[in-house]
Amino acid sequence: MAVKFAKRLDNLEGSAIRELLKLTQRPEVISFAGGMPAPELFPVEEMKKVSVAVLEEQGQVALQYTTTEGYAPLREKIADRMNTKLKTNVKADDILITSGSQQGLDFAGKVFIDEGDVILCESPSYMGALNAMKAYQPKFIEIPTDNDGMIMEELEKVLATTDRVKMIYVIPDFQNPSGRTWPMERRLKFMEIINKYEIPVIEDNPYGELRFDGEFLPSLKSLDTKGLVIFLGTFSKIFCPGYRLGWTCAAPEILNKFNICKQGADLQASTISQMEVNKFMDMFDLDAHVEKIKACYRKRRDVMMKAMEEEFPDSVEFTHPQGGLFTWVILPEGINAGEMAKKCLEKDVAYVPGESFYPNGGVYNTCRLNYSNMPEDKIVEGIKRMAEVIKEELAEHAK
Amino acid sequence: MAVKFAKRLDNLEGSAIRELLKLTQRPEVISFAGGMPAPELFPVEEMKKVSVAVLEEQGQVALQYTTTEGYAPLREKIADRMNTKLKTNVKADDILITSGSQQGLDFAGKVFIDEGDVILCESPSYMGALNAMKAYQPKFIEIPTDNDGMIMEELEKVLATTDRVKMIYVIPDFQNPSGRTWPMERRLKFMEIINKYEIPVIEDNPYGELRFDGEFLPSLKSLDTKGLVIFLGTFSKIFCPGYRLGWTCAAPEILNKFNICKQGADLQASTISQMEVNKFMDMFDLDAHVEKIKACYRKRRDVMMKAMEEEFPDSVEFTHPQGGLFTWVILPEGINAGEMAKKCLEKDVAYVPGESFYPNGGVYNTCRLNYSNMPEDKIVEGIKRMAEVIKEELAEHAK
Repeated sequence: MAVKFAKRLDNLEGSAIRELLKLTQRPEVISFAGGMPAPELFPVEEMKKVSVAVLEEQGQVALQYTTTEGYAPLREKIADRMNTKLKTNVKADDILITSGSQQGLDFAGKVFIDEGDVILCESPSYMGALNAMKAYQPKFIEIPTDNDGMIMEELEKVLATTDRVKMIYVIPDFQNPSGRTWPMERRLKFMEIINKYEIPVIEDNPYGELRFDGEFLPSLKSLDTKGLVIFLGTFSKIFCPGYRLGWTCAAPEILNKFNICKQGADLQASTISQMEVNKFMDMFDLDAHVEKIKACYRKRRDVMMKAMEEEFPDSVEFTHPQGGLFTWVILPEGINAGEMAKKCLEKDVAYVPGESFYPNGGVYNTCRLNYSNMPEDKIVEGIKRMAEVIKEELAEHAK
Repeated sequence: MAVKFAKRLDNLEGSAIRELLKLTQRPEVISFAGGMPAPELFPVEEMKKVSVAVLEEQGQVALQYTTTEGYAPLREKIADRMNTKLKTNVKADDILITSGSQQGLDFAGKVFIDEGDVILCESPSYMGALNAMKAYQPKFIEIPTDNDGMIMEELEKVLATTDRVKMIYVIPDFQNPSGRTWPMERRLKFMEIINKYEIPVIEDNPYGELRFDGEFLPSLKSLDTKGLVIFLGTFSKIFCPGYRLGWTCAAPEILNKFNICKQGADLQASTISQMEVNKFMDMFDLDAHVEKIKACYRKRRDVMMKAMEEEFPDSVEFTHPQGGLFTWVILPEGINAGEMAKKCLEKDVAYVPGESFYPNGGVYNTCRLNYSNMPEDKIVEGIKRMAEVIKEELAEHAK
């Protein structure tokens, strides 16, 4: 067959995570691999009432097309919620409903990137974002991080010496994959830098509401005085991912471009899903639901931290997330987390090797561990098995 | 603000239809503008039972992430349905669930088009597809059509003399916007030509099942021996659009590329929407539902045809669709359908001027009329008012 694909596909591969997830679907596997919420917390009973109410009250509207921007009452609620939770000052008109926040990542690439343009991101960063943006053939420059996230001096150095930087992609709260959070002074410094260079920023914030301890920190969007921050939010982690509903919040000129992308991409997000999520917030208490999620994940994080402290050799480092879904494990140099993943899978334990979180590759001794999706006993058992494999690897390595 | 957008946005504008639809939302407007199904036919009562059943039986699964390919039982049903209705020979593995068939149009551009590559399409063609594909900066070459759709001799001429043709986009059944259908001999000739040139074909088939009269004609996909046809289907017109569920059916090598696009675009279609549509087909009779839709639209088409015959001046031509949602009106040369639309809107009648359906522009005397969304009395009244405006325009023109 003579079919020729576009050049952009040369660098595009399927997500390692989603391929891995297929392997981990055997029920006996203890999986730290995905980024899945705890399904036992989903408001199943509530959604039965909600879906009947939506169909009863506005069935024909719910099953019809709606506007590209999204269902107006839901956009209103999202703006209000952002203003309450994140101290932003936004209106319903600043919100575009997307199919998960993932769709906002795709649109960001589409809207800003010509072939060869530069995207700056944290090193490591969320592979799903990197993969979405790769379709637009950018160069990625990774900004070094420490335990407090992106290092601002490094960011400044790169901005001062690099042409064609079109966009900066960051996850300041409970980052995927590292679990790290930027402290206040970094946020302020970051805004100072981007205000100077006037580069658009994608603030990906799926976990911001899931803080277990430590103090609230303002979102970049709430510190944005020049309309440079494009905020991506989602219901996937504070409600449930099955509806595929997220949103983009941005300045009008930018949001208009995202809206054009949305028309081309799929016309609009699901009408009925939007109305159901909106109705849930009318009929039930989303804040109370988020508290339940936080209590559960806090405990699971604690259990995983304790198990890693007890079981992992001292030469293994890991982050202590204050919220979110992930911790990041740094193995001693020389241990290949990708190879080790196969051995763990033989013991029915899965995680995501860190390599794919570095857009330019080259780092082999890290892994991302998710703690939101497994019950506590399985977390303990899974970390034990993983520790055994790590010890074997170290022994092998010492030879 | 120094924010720079990607070059691809220079040619991208919001859809004229979706902007127009906002104007037509006043309840007094008789709208032939959208492509919306009749909401009074939506299975609202059935979906109440369906949504409760899905949540009761598999609530946690329905609200969680699922695989990118889509919910396996739904893919199975789609493959079976295609094989029954369209005489194809496809399997569940050949199906990727998308967010409406619109998403398949976006992916087609992403998968095949480098800047400057050529897309061939019918003249006129569906503007939503053209807009989605424009993001990938193609050149469009429009193949002339007559009352039987694309003229194959013209297609051959273009293929013989044009470099970089990467894709052919067609709607052989009840085309949007023209309502035209390709007869059998054109389908066979088309397949002969594309087999010779081995160019991938996007067969967009949202209305295929909505045939009111005339004989069944096989889809291009069912005639495809070389895996060149990429079939786009949707539940929007045979069920309802609010769930945003469509599908792409293609050869494995191609479908794999679409799958990679899906991961980047939004990870997956809504889990719960997929399970609900699947469950509807288990609990109720989709075929019977489609028959109801056909009976209603057939009548509305008849009413619109009769009204146009009676009211429109003889110099106005229009197509007689055998199915689908649209008829295409050709006004006498010199009448500008875009200008006329404003006058019609003053009389509370809306349609879509044809210009945007020509990717290279230049045709001003055509309009697309939808008959699926308005009750019969409004169709008669709307055509009457439109006829008045046309007569005024002709009188003006004769001066």
